Amino acid sequence: MTSTTSSGPSSDKAPAKDPWDLPDVSGYVVGVLGGTGPQGKGLAYRLARAGQKVIIGSRSAERAQAAAGELGHGVEGADNAETARRSDIVIVAVPWDGHGDTLTALREDLSGKLVVDCVNPLGFDKKGAYALKPEEGSAAEQAAALLPDSRVTAAFHHLSAVLLQDPEIDEIDTDVMVLGEQRADVEIVQALAGRIPGMRGIFAGRLRNAHQVESLVANLISVNRRYKAHAGLRLTDV
Amino acid sequence: MTSTTSSGPSSDKAPAKDPWDLPDVSGYVVGVLGGTGPQGKGLAYRLARAGQKVIIGSRSAERAQAAAGELGHGVEGADNAETARRSDIVIVAVPWDGHGDTLTALREDLSGKLVVDCVNPLGFDKKGAYALKPEEGSAAEQAAALLPDSRVTAAFHHLSAVLLQDPEIDEIDTDVMVLGEQRADVEIVQALAGRIPGMRGIFAGRLRNAHQVESLVANLISVNRRYKAHAGLRLTDV
Repeated sequence: MTSTTSSGPSSDKAPAKDPWDLPDVSGYVVGVLGGTGPQGKGLAYRLARAGQKVIIGSRSAERAQAAAGELGHGVEGADNAETARRSDIVIVAVPWDGHGDTLTALREDLSGKLVVDCVNPLGFDKKGAYALKPEEGSAAEQAAALLPDSRVTAAFHHLSAVLLQDPEIDEIDTDVMVLGEQRADVEIVQALAGRIPGMRGIFAGRLRNAHQVESLVANLISVNRRYKAHAGLRLTDV
Repeated sequence: MTSTTSSGPSSDKAPAKDPWDLPDVSGYVVGVLGGTGPQGKGLAYRLARAGQKVIIGSRSAERAQAAAGELGHGVEGADNAETARRSDIVIVAVPWDGHGDTLTALREDLSGKLVVDCVNPLGFDKKGAYALKPEEGSAAEQAAALLPDSRVTAAFHHLSAVLLQDPEIDEIDTDVMVLGEQRADVEIVQALAGRIPGMRGIFAGRLRNAHQVESLVANLISVNRRYKAHAGLRLTDV
């Protein structure tokens, strides 16, 4: 239970800045690494549909271009390195298996970029999904360790690829927890999430608290099985 | 991102039983260990106000009785051992520091009982709250290891003690993630959560996935600081 909501840290001086005063991100180019997978593709679709310039990246430029063509809304496709170089914000939506190797190979291309890691390290067995604990603490912290010249944040973990990709659905009824070390970077990602109708981007801590956000997807999978749902999260009282 | 909401585990055969068909728990006696702390007290208050018979436990019977008197609604106070023995369902709301020792001492008193662990192992430093990882994986798994003759579940992690204790507030607008190994036990806890106006109890996985639910409180503390809120969680599409 949240013993510290009543006293202690929560009663510290809050920043004077309005937490809902977010920057205009409409001019940024957003790249999506792993953009041909269901999640990357779904997120690319939602952002492009909201008016953002989106490039989806894949190991194969041809596959990326084919996927981009299906999405429309001006989405382009390129290989991962070109996607990284041409983008201001780069969403990492690759499978956990290839996460470290992919980012290591793109270190220079991602230099100076705002990186948004949305990878959930999970294992699966007969009992369902369970959290994997990366040596660095989380996928996001692994990204931060591998990309010392990038601005690494974490977000977009709890979205249903099914809902994201369904063109009949106009609003994605969910909050996006955004984690990071630099407030300015976090706010850009919050604003980006807010471009998608129904979504709010909410600051939810530093990268050292990313593991539980990533691995909560194991719980959402249990929820989805029991309730035949595509569960997302809303934060109440915010 | 939830790659498995579209295929794989989520497409397995779901149980035929309606997940909202929950048992009547109105006749159960609920004990709250650590019932004189803000969270335990808040939860005791809400359950008693909803008509449940509640006993709050403390190391000192006198302090428990004094706190019970403040709460009204028929709440009684007793020492932890008597509270455990007289209750059908025992909520563990003690500080993480004393969690293992308290449960070890109560092993026999808790034998056969439905135990609901709601403890969040957290550390605090200048940067705020962070997750502690118990050797057993989570507070709930520690409880299960220490209480082999009890039926251990986990729930009620994300509630604000401030809101719970505020008599002016009629509804607690939040979902309660309930974790456990035995469906019948989980459903009792779900039903118990559902006694409190505004709350739903939702099955959210096995105990091996309790750590991230417990430690997500570190993120809610960050949310509370940034937004001056008492944040809770709702699951969407459920």
